[in-house]
Amino acid sequence: MDDTSNLDAMNFLNEVAERYPQAISLASGRPSEAMMQEVDWTRRIAAFTAHAARSLGWTAECATGRLAQYGRTAGIIADLIVRQVGHDENIDCDASQLVVTAGCQEALDLCLPILCSDEDDVVMAPDPVYIGVTGVASRHRIGMVPVYGMRDSPEAALDAAWRAAQAAKKVPRALYLVPNFDNPTGVTLDEQERRAIIAWCAAHEVVIIEDNPYGMFRYGGEHQASMFSLDDVGCVIYCGTYSKTLRPALRTGFVLLPMRLFGSVERAASLSAALVQAKSFVTVNTSQITQAIVGGMLLEQNCSLRAVVEPLVEAYRRQRDAMLEELDRHCRGLHPELRWNVPDGGFFLVVELPFAMRENDARECAEQYGVLVMPLSFFALGPGWQCAVRLAFSFVNEAEIRRGIERFGAYVRARLGISIPPPATEVACVA
Amino acid sequence: MDDTSNLDAMNFLNEVAERYPQAISLASGRPSEAMMQEVDWTRRIAAFTAHAARSLGWTAECATGRLAQYGRTAGIIADLIVRQVGHDENIDCDASQLVVTAGCQEALDLCLPILCSDEDDVVMAPDPVYIGVTGVASRHRIGMVPVYGMRDSPEAALDAAWRAAQAAKKVPRALYLVPNFDNPTGVTLDEQERRAIIAWCAAHEVVIIEDNPYGMFRYGGEHQASMFSLDDVGCVIYCGTYSKTLRPALRTGFVLLPMRLFGSVERAASLSAALVQAKSFVTVNTSQITQAIVGGMLLEQNCSLRAVVEPLVEAYRRQRDAMLEELDRHCRGLHPELRWNVPDGGFFLVVELPFAMRENDARECAEQYGVLVMPLSFFALGPGWQCAVRLAFSFVNEAEIRRGIERFGAYVRARLGISIPPPATEVACVA
Repeated sequence: MDDTSNLDAMNFLNEVAERYPQAISLASGRPSEAMMQEVDWTRRIAAFTAHAARSLGWTAECATGRLAQYGRTAGIIADLIVRQVGHDENIDCDASQLVVTAGCQEALDLCLPILCSDEDDVVMAPDPVYIGVTGVASRHRIGMVPVYGMRDSPEAALDAAWRAAQAAKKVPRALYLVPNFDNPTGVTLDEQERRAIIAWCAAHEVVIIEDNPYGMFRYGGEHQASMFSLDDVGCVIYCGTYSKTLRPALRTGFVLLPMRLFGSVERAASLSAALVQAKSFVTVNTSQITQAIVGGMLLEQNCSLRAVVEPLVEAYRRQRDAMLEELDRHCRGLHPELRWNVPDGGFFLVVELPFAMRENDARECAEQYGVLVMPLSFFALGPGWQCAVRLAFSFVNEAEIRRGIERFGAYVRARLGISIPPPATEVACVA
Repeated sequence: MDDTSNLDAMNFLNEVAERYPQAISLASGRPSEAMMQEVDWTRRIAAFTAHAARSLGWTAECATGRLAQYGRTAGIIADLIVRQVGHDENIDCDASQLVVTAGCQEALDLCLPILCSDEDDVVMAPDPVYIGVTGVASRHRIGMVPVYGMRDSPEAALDAAWRAAQAAKKVPRALYLVPNFDNPTGVTLDEQERRAIIAWCAAHEVVIIEDNPYGMFRYGGEHQASMFSLDDVGCVIYCGTYSKTLRPALRTGFVLLPMRLFGSVERAASLSAALVQAKSFVTVNTSQITQAIVGGMLLEQNCSLRAVVEPLVEAYRRQRDAMLEELDRHCRGLHPELRWNVPDGGFFLVVELPFAMRENDARECAEQYGVLVMPLSFFALGPGWQCAVRLAFSFVNEAEIRRGIERFGAYVRARLGISIPPPATEVACVA
């Protein structure tokens, strides 16, 4: 699987969704719109403007103009974000460590070329991995080194990747991870694994980019401390976003930098300066309007989003459970190599299949069985992952998930030669 | 002057503005906040949502959720922007040619690495040039080739730059230009110059990036057709922004691609695909909230911003005239090498000085004379421009401009040995 195919995932999704609008999409990892129905939700700008009198020294006279203007490159809501991650993620940090970004995706596009600034510098990542980091690496012509077997033994897995990089005369400078409810795998690292990875990265001077878009969406198992908060060496950069907890249209996320990078205040300061400078050349500063809406929402919630996400967590848990139930009903026992994981949270799970499931198979599945799934090969760094799909349970509702998995089960049985006719496809509400 | 100093301009500005808050800033090119006093200006989201029923097929039921969600990578207001540039810039284009970006700065960060994708590819630009393009080139390790004497003879200037690039084994792929009221110089290219540049670029397969943030702010002289509309070969990419006409906090701009790149529909399609893919990896899509505000404002104005900018144009013209008057009063005739240009529009003019004016001189001028000016050396690609400053008349009001130039005149006289005491600095309203 080459890079190009990897990057074509969005095109594939859009094309198939457009060609087969009746297909239920278990491919899109968008958040549910059920909790985004408040019409006048941007009204919270006013609350932030009042707060800005204290936090930024904006008088009532100047506040309207100041908010509409260009602003601080690092953003104007760091104080509120610091309180929120303190309350919700138990992260202890200072506003000076924080840069507000136009979503977490921009954070990746800013950080990666700074960390991998020499031609031979590469970024390590588990395989499969979130497409957005592969896209950023490709855009900046930064090589990626896949890490295999991270959960079996982090040290051995990272050692093997390190040796592979060295053999190719490459120097790993960063490790990209989604430790909570990974995209695409749904897997969560436990504390022992996190500590082992931090120790290895500290010893090898590899910076961990901890991407945590799904951390607040836990449906089972125990809370895991963020790698940022477990790190006492200064090797973790934490990326957060309000796309899943509040609204994607806010395009507001943030980067938290370590106070001392590998123990050095100077190196941390130079990383911070490079990040702020890069930010100024990409989006100048994150829209102060969207920052003010986030700020207003945080103020309204006393800087904790637990109450806001609670109904979402309940809905997503029900949707995950519905998906698992229907997988049990329609797929369990069909083949010893047909299996799936039970994620403790997030938006995704992975079904491993006893047959290849590539782009054309997924197209056929959408066309003939009325359900759209995401081949895992789109997320692959290496040649593997040809026989697996990512299923998302975040965007479509419970009823659609049940119908979707029923259809997917029919497709799987057909591929396995367990012949039954495909179910009649109805027009689904995926407008 | 090396790259690093170039990129430190923002740090310099911030540092000096913080250290000498009483100094009047003629350095900042921010737009005036006088026209940004409407408190509830974001209310126009509703008007756009109604329009979206027609333009995007969003029903009343789904519109609120859909707007809050992730969205089309290329944006959701292309139809309105097409009408606006049609009315205001006489540009004839199709929505399919347009990608909405998080301000024009993101447009540069997306386009440049696509156009200069090989290691030896470089971008040409007049010297001095807008710092933002230098920053993007540096971030992507793309070399820049300065073009000198563009106004004397575009062909000869571009030929010389081309030869210099070839001698360094570099291949120019793009030419960055602000043809209207350039930042930092204030200079405008006339139609003959524009046509000559287009002909040269067409012959050499160099893509022109036409950056037009100030085009609607003309205070004298005749309107000049955009290079995009003069181009019948397909070599111009047009970058627009609503930061200066509406509000910087919208962080909404756009890129217009040629229908046929150097005559080829296929090359245009491949450029468009690359741009959309890059966009998806930097900011996913431009905030649909800020797009909806721009969309609502455009709808309110029947897709022409002439009425909106009219009072701004009047204010900026008065501010430019005040600056020119005071320059005449305080600086005229002091030295034969002391001269400045009269820009037909935009935010800036340049004063050439008979002495060097670098970072430390500007700091001293702010400290001792209470006025902050921008050394032109910050915008320099080559070793020149040590004896000039950029003066901005956009942000501070007329009275401040008059006081600021009086102080600057005192500084100039002191540097020339025409000894008079510096004026008493008052606390100025630059909070």
